[in-house]
Amino acid sequence: MRDVSIIGIGQTKVGEHWDTSIRHLAWYAVQAAMKDAGIERADALYVGNMLSGELSGQEHLGALVADFAGLQGIEAVKIEAACASGAAALRMGYIAVAGGMADVVIVVGVEKMTDRPGPEVTSALAMAADADYEVLHGVSFVALNALLMQRYMHEYGYAHEDFAPFAVNAHRNAVHNPYAMFPFPITRERFLAARMIASPINLLDSSPICDGAAAVILCPTEQARAYTDKAVRIAASAIATDTVAVHDRRDPLFLEGAALSARRAYKQAGVTPQEIDFFELHDAFTIMSALSLEAAGFAERGQGVRLALEGEITLEGRIPICTMGGLKARGHPVGATGVYQVVEAALQLRGEAGPNQLPNARLGMTQNIGGSGATVVTHILERLA
Amino acid sequence: MRDVSIIGIGQTKVGEHWDTSIRHLAWYAVQAAMKDAGIERADALYVGNMLSGELSGQEHLGALVADFAGLQGIEAVKIEAACASGAAALRMGYIAVAGGMADVVIVVGVEKMTDRPGPEVTSALAMAADADYEVLHGVSFVALNALLMQRYMHEYGYAHEDFAPFAVNAHRNAVHNPYAMFPFPITRERFLAARMIASPINLLDSSPICDGAAAVILCPTEQARAYTDKAVRIAASAIATDTVAVHDRRDPLFLEGAALSARRAYKQAGVTPQEIDFFELHDAFTIMSALSLEAAGFAERGQGVRLALEGEITLEGRIPICTMGGLKARGHPVGATGVYQVVEAALQLRGEAGPNQLPNARLGMTQNIGGSGATVVTHILERLA
Repeated sequence: MRDVSIIGIGQTKVGEHWDTSIRHLAWYAVQAAMKDAGIERADALYVGNMLSGELSGQEHLGALVADFAGLQGIEAVKIEAACASGAAALRMGYIAVAGGMADVVIVVGVEKMTDRPGPEVTSALAMAADADYEVLHGVSFVALNALLMQRYMHEYGYAHEDFAPFAVNAHRNAVHNPYAMFPFPITRERFLAARMIASPINLLDSSPICDGAAAVILCPTEQARAYTDKAVRIAASAIATDTVAVHDRRDPLFLEGAALSARRAYKQAGVTPQEIDFFELHDAFTIMSALSLEAAGFAERGQGVRLALEGEITLEGRIPICTMGGLKARGHPVGATGVYQVVEAALQLRGEAGPNQLPNARLGMTQNIGGSGATVVTHILERLA
Repeated sequence: MRDVSIIGIGQTKVGEHWDTSIRHLAWYAVQAAMKDAGIERADALYVGNMLSGELSGQEHLGALVADFAGLQGIEAVKIEAACASGAAALRMGYIAVAGGMADVVIVVGVEKMTDRPGPEVTSALAMAADADYEVLHGVSFVALNALLMQRYMHEYGYAHEDFAPFAVNAHRNAVHNPYAMFPFPITRERFLAARMIASPINLLDSSPICDGAAAVILCPTEQARAYTDKAVRIAASAIATDTVAVHDRRDPLFLEGAALSARRAYKQAGVTPQEIDFFELHDAFTIMSALSLEAAGFAERGQGVRLALEGEITLEGRIPICTMGGLKARGHPVGATGVYQVVEAALQLRGEAGPNQLPNARLGMTQNIGGSGATVVTHILERLA
């Protein structure tokens, strides 16, 4: 197995891109990443996407993106793992380079969600859950998360307002991210006054429906210097799964898949949670931030919210999360999110995070979650000395 | 890179499985393949599927199939490349084993198409074509193939009846395949009298809309003997892409992607087309059989139909195709087809093809095509002495 590094990154601004098709979004990100790496060709292209069929009437995105990006002939496929599609595509690219099947690989995550009416998007997103045993009974994806949040508050004695720090932190960090959908701060008061969506989840507990694409270029670490002096090493790459239906889990408040995925990653990288400098987690809803922090070993069970209340998740805290805005404020174009997380982590490790730069960041972890924790992809990235 | 072999195969009968959900279909095939290999666990699961979102309201099939098959925790993702999804998933499994990332991998292709009305399925299948530049103008997938066939007949001077041998051969070979959807012979007369769908493509030029799943188990060849004495070696695995839109091609009658994919496979296996004993090609429509034979080097341009007319594609011919019925008569559950082709090739190489057994078959080639040749996945399989 070869060591693998990221030699180029690219992203589009997240937002409502009504004038831009899914192929354009993907192409913009691929183009930016190829330029960043200084490459003009690659051996393979992996596209992370969840809903191109449902929302753009277009499957076959591997060949389509390859074609539109001028990479005809290249090996290309689409990888789907619900909202974890982006990082799952990165994992496939990692496997191809690590195993020696390819030297230069492009990974792009892309999602185009705003061309369709809201209810259609909500139905499409529910396809991350169990169609026969959850969705058929009327539950949407936000409703499932609302049930988890309600139970969490009940079990551990938190009030809804205790989740405010997650949203406030994400928005604060998005201010200096030129690619963020919501680059403005919010106050705790504004969080509390936000419109209810599915009790107890309100508008500011939730990540938005949006469009975007992000890309990275991979190559063997030993070849990385030939391309760039800003390479970021992939110290670990891991996928784990759990039951799709939440009701099938022994304990719905503990993300076994996330814990297993993180354990595999820590083992591969040979590090402990204490050595991780920052954590780009999957804050699709504030409750997911708490559960992720706990599953990944940054907080005891029931203490994820406590960690946020104590300010430890901010840029100045013990384990900064969502350092460029997270899913909440950068935005959550679902199949692209996992790659956005990795691009942002790479910016931190390259020292290019601007006003949000973490001093001496050496190890960053990303965790991309599909469904309510059914697919979890964890990457640990390391600054090359 | 490690050498990789297939140590287990499994398949469901292809048909209209109205009483069986997509997760059941996948599970049945996975179960059969695991039993065949004598394994109870695996390191990763790759699911090939195109339309679970559009036709079953279910994405996130990697985790779903893993969950339902009792493989909780396992690394699992869905791979999509239109009708080439099945073989693309096999390619991902191959990369994972060859590169040393996994020792035992399950690959399953699954599609459930018959629960929805025909027009919805036709619209869903059109997502393999270019949504913005082909489908928007009213073309369906069968219509695109009809245009190709019309042009082919015009260029090379064939009549529609010249394509009969492809359908007749497929149906004849399906008779002894217990998993085939249409296990009965058809005559040339019946072919000619079939109902027109999109001129010149009639019902018997076309593969059916259907449900099915097929699975294979992979492991390094050097470990294969520990599991089975019927291992089949993967001598080559290759993906190539072409433009998605047919009108973007220099010559729509030559499948550049198929030619490139086959060239890569021949090079990896170190063989020539002359050494291939049989070819499981992608006969979604009879015209595709002709174009595939030509692109893969078994016939000169315009001579694919001639090869069929001369009887060279039958079990007794120079290059037998669709030895167990092909897409036409075994059936074409799109995302499963690529794995069915490989399962059938493995049966031939294991000497288990029953009355359809080819004597002394040593090298079999499969070619799975997504769209009108935009993604092409070629595998060459070899009997282990």
